[in-house]
Amino acid sequence: MDIAAYMADVGQQAREAASAVARSTTAVRNQALLATAEALDTARGDLAAANARDLESGRSNGLDDAMLDRLELTPARIDAMIEGLRQVASLPDPIGEITDMTYRPSGIQVGRMRVPLGVIGIIYESRPNVTVEAASLCLKSGNATILRGGSEAIHSNQAIAECLARGLSEAGLPGNAVQVIKTTDRAAVGELITMPRFVDVIVPRGGKGLIERISRDARVPVIKHLDGICHVYIDSHADPEKALAVAVNSKTQRYGTCNTMETLLVDQEIAGDILPLLANAFREKEVELRGCSRTLEILPDVAAASEEDWSTEYLAPILAVKVVHGLDGAIGHINCYSSQHTDSIVTENYTRARRFLTEVDSSSVMVNASTRFADGFEYGLGAEIGISTDKIHARGPVGLEGLTSQKYVVFGDGHIRT
Amino acid sequence: MDIAAYMADVGQQAREAASAVARSTTAVRNQALLATAEALDTARGDLAAANARDLESGRSNGLDDAMLDRLELTPARIDAMIEGLRQVASLPDPIGEITDMTYRPSGIQVGRMRVPLGVIGIIYESRPNVTVEAASLCLKSGNATILRGGSEAIHSNQAIAECLARGLSEAGLPGNAVQVIKTTDRAAVGELITMPRFVDVIVPRGGKGLIERISRDARVPVIKHLDGICHVYIDSHADPEKALAVAVNSKTQRYGTCNTMETLLVDQEIAGDILPLLANAFREKEVELRGCSRTLEILPDVAAASEEDWSTEYLAPILAVKVVHGLDGAIGHINCYSSQHTDSIVTENYTRARRFLTEVDSSSVMVNASTRFADGFEYGLGAEIGISTDKIHARGPVGLEGLTSQKYVVFGDGHIRT
Repeated sequence: MDIAAYMADVGQQAREAASAVARSTTAVRNQALLATAEALDTARGDLAAANARDLESGRSNGLDDAMLDRLELTPARIDAMIEGLRQVASLPDPIGEITDMTYRPSGIQVGRMRVPLGVIGIIYESRPNVTVEAASLCLKSGNATILRGGSEAIHSNQAIAECLARGLSEAGLPGNAVQVIKTTDRAAVGELITMPRFVDVIVPRGGKGLIERISRDARVPVIKHLDGICHVYIDSHADPEKALAVAVNSKTQRYGTCNTMETLLVDQEIAGDILPLLANAFREKEVELRGCSRTLEILPDVAAASEEDWSTEYLAPILAVKVVHGLDGAIGHINCYSSQHTDSIVTENYTRARRFLTEVDSSSVMVNASTRFADGFEYGLGAEIGISTDKIHARGPVGLEGLTSQKYVVFGDGHIRT
Repeated sequence: MDIAAYMADVGQQAREAASAVARSTTAVRNQALLATAEALDTARGDLAAANARDLESGRSNGLDDAMLDRLELTPARIDAMIEGLRQVASLPDPIGEITDMTYRPSGIQVGRMRVPLGVIGIIYESRPNVTVEAASLCLKSGNATILRGGSEAIHSNQAIAECLARGLSEAGLPGNAVQVIKTTDRAAVGELITMPRFVDVIVPRGGKGLIERISRDARVPVIKHLDGICHVYIDSHADPEKALAVAVNSKTQRYGTCNTMETLLVDQEIAGDILPLLANAFREKEVELRGCSRTLEILPDVAAASEEDWSTEYLAPILAVKVVHGLDGAIGHINCYSSQHTDSIVTENYTRARRFLTEVDSSSVMVNASTRFADGFEYGLGAEIGISTDKIHARGPVGLEGLTSQKYVVFGDGHIRT
């Protein structure tokens, strides 16, 4: 197989399909989503069979349990895919919205119209349900999609692709509006991320290694999500009850997510009072603490943190703890070690809250709230294709709007420029 | 000189200065702009002397007249730089604006705050006044800037840089908030566009060759403006008077700008009536026409257009003319040959206007208005750093908002996720 030629074909077909999708009505795109849901429901047997093939080769290739778990399409996961499609269909259509329409002194009327990006390439790892999730968000926002999942999920993804094709066809949309790459050859990824003629943006979903590799080699814009080294800073003017609630929830509500707190900062003025309470709370949750030297003076049982701990995303029940000199110490530490994902201050002090919001350069900044809220659904975006740690285009949780652009529309009556 | 080490220093200093600029108040940034205006006014003698050195070496290096003209800092151009700084100071500050603040079912309050991008790299050619213009827009929007102008303007740019440094210092801002690269070594550009640690976005300003080269080699996001192959389509339902006005103005109001019409499309139904009128009007303006075969049947004196003409940005009194089969023919031609910059339809027909706006995938789409309106000032942006032909981040004329990003702000009262 000539991978470059195959991918150029895929790209060309996506580009052609993109105009048809962009022109389609809200009702047609929703119909395609709902028909795909029906098709998945009907194809449960085929999906299970395809998934069983993937699981079998996964096992014989020695995939670990966590990877096999992500790969599995249980009946509950198929239910969730179907439910997800229905939810995306029920979201408002972002496309075509015209905003900021004003008359200019010249007499022309100028506004901005929300439009699809065009062709979106999605690169992800083993979870086959991402195929449906990503395709549905791209389709809802009027884009064509090229999907490249992990090679271990190839049969599951192809079975899902057939359901998507059926859904598109029932709505009268071109089948190439969603293409799942048919080869597991890694060269296909290399082509996908270097075809600016055919692909408008790449959204990689997966581990940091994958995303760094793609960002480095891409010749197409990438909406990327690197790591989440999130902080909670407990200020000397914090309400201790809120401080405990926010700190414990930010760390323990889920360990493996990017918006989980990885480093706790405590103002030196209250460290002696509050650190023992925090240590108790984290001991109950079996969270291992690693402290700076001042933390160790207050909590002698705690292990010492190394320099590396301040920039580690544990994704595990481990928490780095540092005593800092007030707000300046906290902001200094965060702007040095944070991955600019999500950082929260606990304080009752108005001026400190305001400074924290302004001076911490992260995609989400919070006052008296758990970092775990940094999420497209919690923010009311209705959906989430990922969380961007970039500053360009989309920052923070990315919903449908992040998959669109705006063009200028101008209305005149024979107006000319003088 | 070790260029890599020098540029890493410049980058590091810009990154440090960026936080100070981001934290600074509107009043302080405006003060820096106004003090720079004063400094330029005081330094007229130094500016003229530095510029004379550049002009002299330009002449002895055989620069052509157009290039020498762009290089020259006449008293009127210095006036314009000073006036530009005052205008930018008078614009509203985009930074800190909080929008879309809503309560979520969880009880948290979520909104978006407009923030600077950080460090912006500007790469441009011979015009030294771009130094002030670009620096002022970046500073107003809270960013630090690294400027790299054409080597032929090095003395003029360094003299301007001194005025900028004086302005920054008078306002108490770090001098490194605006850095003009001190070397003419081209390797400096290579470094600047491959330092994602220090530079958040690159804005190249200049010819297509420069921009293509930078986009190809950059490892930092680029806000780019490639060519402007703009179209006017005269529909069969056009008002002939408006059609003539819009077509003539789109082509002849200025020839060398990116929003000038390069191809005129005429519906076959009215071509026989309107093409002779158009030909007369363009003959009066001494515009050379190059027509398709159907155009030549109606206008036998016109030269034949080759395939290449449909994708040529003339930037000159030359116009390609094509007769098309109605709206579908026009949209088909535009979406094939347009550079997705600006395209306009002339029609009185509601449905055709609506289809043109939706189906033409360009950064500006217009009805009954001259393509020459595609401009940041005409659109009311108050300023323009360039026109983006990208879809990601900023599309069309880019004002201060294009130099900013938005972060999420979350207010809680000890809220935790359950």
